[in-house]
Amino acid sequence: MGKHTPLVQKLIDALRVLPSVGPKSAQRMAYQLLERNREAGLQLASALHSAMTKVGHCQRCRTFCEGQICQICAHPIRGQSSLLCIVASAADLFAIEQTGLFAGRYFVLRGQLSPLDGVGPTELGLDALSQQLGQGKIEEVILATNPTVEGEATAFYIAELCRKHRVQVSRLAQGMPVGGELEFLDGSTLSYALSGRKPF
Amino acid sequence: MGKHTPLVQKLIDALRVLPSVGPKSAQRMAYQLLERNREAGLQLASALHSAMTKVGHCQRCRTFCEGQICQICAHPIRGQSSLLCIVASAADLFAIEQTGLFAGRYFVLRGQLSPLDGVGPTELGLDALSQQLGQGKIEEVILATNPTVEGEATAFYIAELCRKHRVQVSRLAQGMPVGGELEFLDGSTLSYALSGRKPF
Ligand SMILES: [Zn+2]
Ligand SMILES: [Zn+2]
Repeated sequence: MGKHTPLVQKLIDALRVLPSVGPKSAQRMAYQLLERNREAGLQLASALHSAMTKVGHCQRCRTFCEGQICQICAHPIRGQSSLLCIVASAADLFAIEQTGLFAGRYFVLRGQLSPLDGVGPTELGLDALSQQLGQGKIEEVILATNPTVEGEATAFYIAELCRKHRVQVSRLAQGMPVGGELEFLDGSTLSYALSGRKPF
Repeated sequence: MGKHTPLVQKLIDALRVLPSVGPKSAQRMAYQLLERNREAGLQLASALHSAMTKVGHCQRCRTFCEGQICQICAHPIRGQSSLLCIVASAADLFAIEQTGLFAGRYFVLRGQLSPLDGVGPTELGLDALSQQLGQGKIEEVILATNPTVEGEATAFYIAELCRKHRVQVSRLAQGMPVGGELEFLDGSTLSYALSGRKPF
């Protein structure tokens, strides 16, 4: 009889879709909500439902947005910026916004090139990007895709697109993470740090 | 503009009710569902709603149950067992069931005595337990409350109840956890292990 009741099992299975939630923690989550906080469980159900059905994407930069145009694109100054930062996801956009150091606008790819998974230029919205570049208002594109094979391939592809439109391109610096310890760095990060060294 | 849209923020806040989910992981969960798996997000919403509203408690042992009586209590043999194991939560019941070593039935307290938090004998259902003990069909009660101050106080209280009903009482053994290393054991576990030592 070491079995959960059907609805509890269904809840445990459903919780597994959350990142880094294994069977043990899914069970702990389900039992804790059922035993101590059903009201919060119902609130979570309704917040999930609203977000999944009502959060859309900005028509211009494709980040999460509950209307047609996001706050950044709608901003009188930032929305007209000639500096365009290209990120792989809305989460990456949020991380850059958190630094408070970037005052331009964004284009969110919502993925990175991965031909084997069927993710090509169309899926990433590169036609829309190309169109924006063609309007001649963008002077510099910052490629902020991940420092991974797919991120690099995506950056490479977009860099070509920029050159075609005679738009300047830059890439986020790669090197030692702040606070990282040199002896624990992986080899390729260390080579980037070495070859990209700067006068001190 | 380092802000989530209102519905995304609401979802992130709601995810924080899950055990060991901090602001960072709540954000990652929300973004991942929104970016990659809205269908699964909707399924989770509906599984949460069903479980929170439809999972009740067994009228006899108080564990999670979708009908009136749970599978164990309804079982022709286990339901008639004269061995009653008392646990603090349905999760503890499940953990014991997983061992496959216990063939009696249970009583789920759904908490432990904690007068300061307003959890007294009534909240734990001890009246119902006393009534079951009074029926004279239970020969032994196994106290499987946690080895904590509150768990011990609860065990002590129930042991008194059992003595009044002339029912035999036992407590789960305390000592070294299997696979644990002696040098990392806390002092009180070690004292239990010492004073409870057995001939080898
Ligand atoms: Zn936008
Ligand atoms: Zn039951």
